[in-house]
Amino acid sequence: MPIVGVIGGGQLARMMIPAAVALGIELRVLAETPDSSARLATTAIGDGRDIDAVLSFAQGCDVITFDHEHVPQQVLAAMVAAGVAVNPGPHALLYAQDKLAMRERLSELGVPQPDWARVHSATELAQFLADHGGRAVVKTPRGGYDGKGVRMVDDAHGADDWLADGPVLAEERVLFERELAQLIARRPSGEARPWPLFETVQRDGVCAQVIAPARGATQSVQSAAVAIATTVAHGLEVTGVLAVELFEATDGRVLVNELAMRPHNSGHVTIDGSATSQFEQHLRAVLDWPLGDTTPLAPWGVMINVFGGLADEQIASALGHQPSVKVHAYGKSTRPGRKAGHVTVIGDDLDDLVYRARAAAAHFD
Amino acid sequence: MPIVGVIGGGQLARMMIPAAVALGIELRVLAETPDSSARLATTAIGDGRDIDAVLSFAQGCDVITFDHEHVPQQVLAAMVAAGVAVNPGPHALLYAQDKLAMRERLSELGVPQPDWARVHSATELAQFLADHGGRAVVKTPRGGYDGKGVRMVDDAHGADDWLADGPVLAEERVLFERELAQLIARRPSGEARPWPLFETVQRDGVCAQVIAPARGATQSVQSAAVAIATTVAHGLEVTGVLAVELFEATDGRVLVNELAMRPHNSGHVTIDGSATSQFEQHLRAVLDWPLGDTTPLAPWGVMINVFGGLADEQIASALGHQPSVKVHAYGKSTRPGRKAGHVTVIGDDLDDLVYRARAAAAHFD
Repeated sequence: MPIVGVIGGGQLARMMIPAAVALGIELRVLAETPDSSARLATTAIGDGRDIDAVLSFAQGCDVITFDHEHVPQQVLAAMVAAGVAVNPGPHALLYAQDKLAMRERLSELGVPQPDWARVHSATELAQFLADHGGRAVVKTPRGGYDGKGVRMVDDAHGADDWLADGPVLAEERVLFERELAQLIARRPSGEARPWPLFETVQRDGVCAQVIAPARGATQSVQSAAVAIATTVAHGLEVTGVLAVELFEATDGRVLVNELAMRPHNSGHVTIDGSATSQFEQHLRAVLDWPLGDTTPLAPWGVMINVFGGLADEQIASALGHQPSVKVHAYGKSTRPGRKAGHVTVIGDDLDDLVYRARAAAAHFD
Repeated sequence: MPIVGVIGGGQLARMMIPAAVALGIELRVLAETPDSSARLATTAIGDGRDIDAVLSFAQGCDVITFDHEHVPQQVLAAMVAAGVAVNPGPHALLYAQDKLAMRERLSELGVPQPDWARVHSATELAQFLADHGGRAVVKTPRGGYDGKGVRMVDDAHGADDWLADGPVLAEERVLFERELAQLIARRPSGEARPWPLFETVQRDGVCAQVIAPARGATQSVQSAAVAIATTVAHGLEVTGVLAVELFEATDGRVLVNELAMRPHNSGHVTIDGSATSQFEQHLRAVLDWPLGDTTPLAPWGVMINVFGGLADEQIASALGHQPSVKVHAYGKSTRPGRKAGHVTVIGDDLDDLVYRARAAAAHFD
């Protein structure tokens, strides 16, 4: 029985548990706290930035993978030096950790993305603004997620605080019709399998709703998305699930917004809506096992995130009113604004599905 | 977060884990050994026949349910006396534990079943044989499962060894077209939901293959099966999943063969093939939460059991050749003839699905 170790005890590690149970994989989790979301599979408590804790955890595992991208390169390098199989590897994870490195590498690969620049000063930012209609998105290269570390700027001094710590990434503000996500899994021996293109709705920088597949996506948009994800997966030698967040620009371009090298919020719809969920596929990929069929189980799937918390009575109430909706609770204590769970429903009639998913999610308001 | 305690650490307890993870239910298992199939959720090691072990385990749980039917009535009674919620309750479980009590109660409820008799002696067995064409099925009232405790008899002395221990159940040998299984879940407040009727193929008394739904079942057979399961569920006050194993007799009768009050081998196809799996439904039912939609996710589903063991290379090989087949491994050590896992595939073309399921299962031969 293969042993997969996951660094980080969040909901992504939690949602690997069902896939591991099905495939007879032993899942071990290095969690920050004993009461983490993935506590059922937690075998060690420790900080993913602590080399000793990570090495000791990794020792008994056949492969190490991740709940998040925040394990520092020197910790990753120490694992590799100790002979631990790490998927995705440090050389790939770098591009999920450092947005400047990612933009540089994607430019080399010829992947379409917003205009961007490495900006060291307010002067350079002023130039970028002047070249892009006076507006830019500025991002810290590291540490950003769910809208953090991202800022809309129209003033050359709008990122002075961040610039004090080093260069930032300035990006063209893309006018987009909508946001899309192309998920793909790749395994070390090279096999890669995409899911259909998903449509995501972000609220305050956080994924709020996913529609699978993306409504009315043209064949050319779908092909572009798969081509981008395939190029990135192979070009960056990603192993495991890769989520490519995309803009469908008003001018028709399909551009890479962000990358994540792990199961991704936009892919939660695959748990109930795909022959192979992103969590099962991730485990298969990091073990270098053959990948599974990614055909949808129904014409449409809708996923809506739930924030704050899911009280038992709320879960029972949602289940009672919407018997076809699948409720996923992350086992977290209640905290306003925190991703606490999601609901998914699949079927034939998209309008009806959106109604039912929203109706179910409303029980948690 | 509700806490469900499961007595017994077999594959049924194991397969409750994914459903518990999704619904934010804390699952605790009282397992016989530390290396049981359900070890991930095991919080106590002990014997389900040991009152102290069971009471101590039950103390911290909101409700107790079961991986098997072998917890003695005095242990169940002790839990009830201690104020523990037990689902299914002792009064229901009795009929899953004692086949004579089951036949008596189903007769009272008017449920169609094979002719049967409580037989105390070879003389009484001789009479039953004489009345039924010289052939009977003889069963020990207790302790039988997967073909054990069941014997085909055509000689009045064919059950002398069992009769030395007390009365046995003699049943008409039903000539049947095929075996069927009607699964239904019922919760304490009375709501009950059936799944579609399944067709089962037994080999040596053990479930080998399930086709969902049963091929070409007439509306009258389907209605009869649901009516029987509903009558039994309410009549016996079953809580949780009830599996009614049925004969479709050559003379057109639909007759009850056996009952199980827990998720059942014939229902494993619901994990990948139903909007709500039998494991999720069981947890919802025993918590008295509203029950889920039991609509199939595809026109057909095929489940095939795997015996012996599932080596890692075999799993990888099966996944590689059959990317749409879902493999479920029970995390058991290899032992010839032991139920070690199952494979499921769903889709539109039954012949193709049977081919694919068999092809996948063949990797484990």
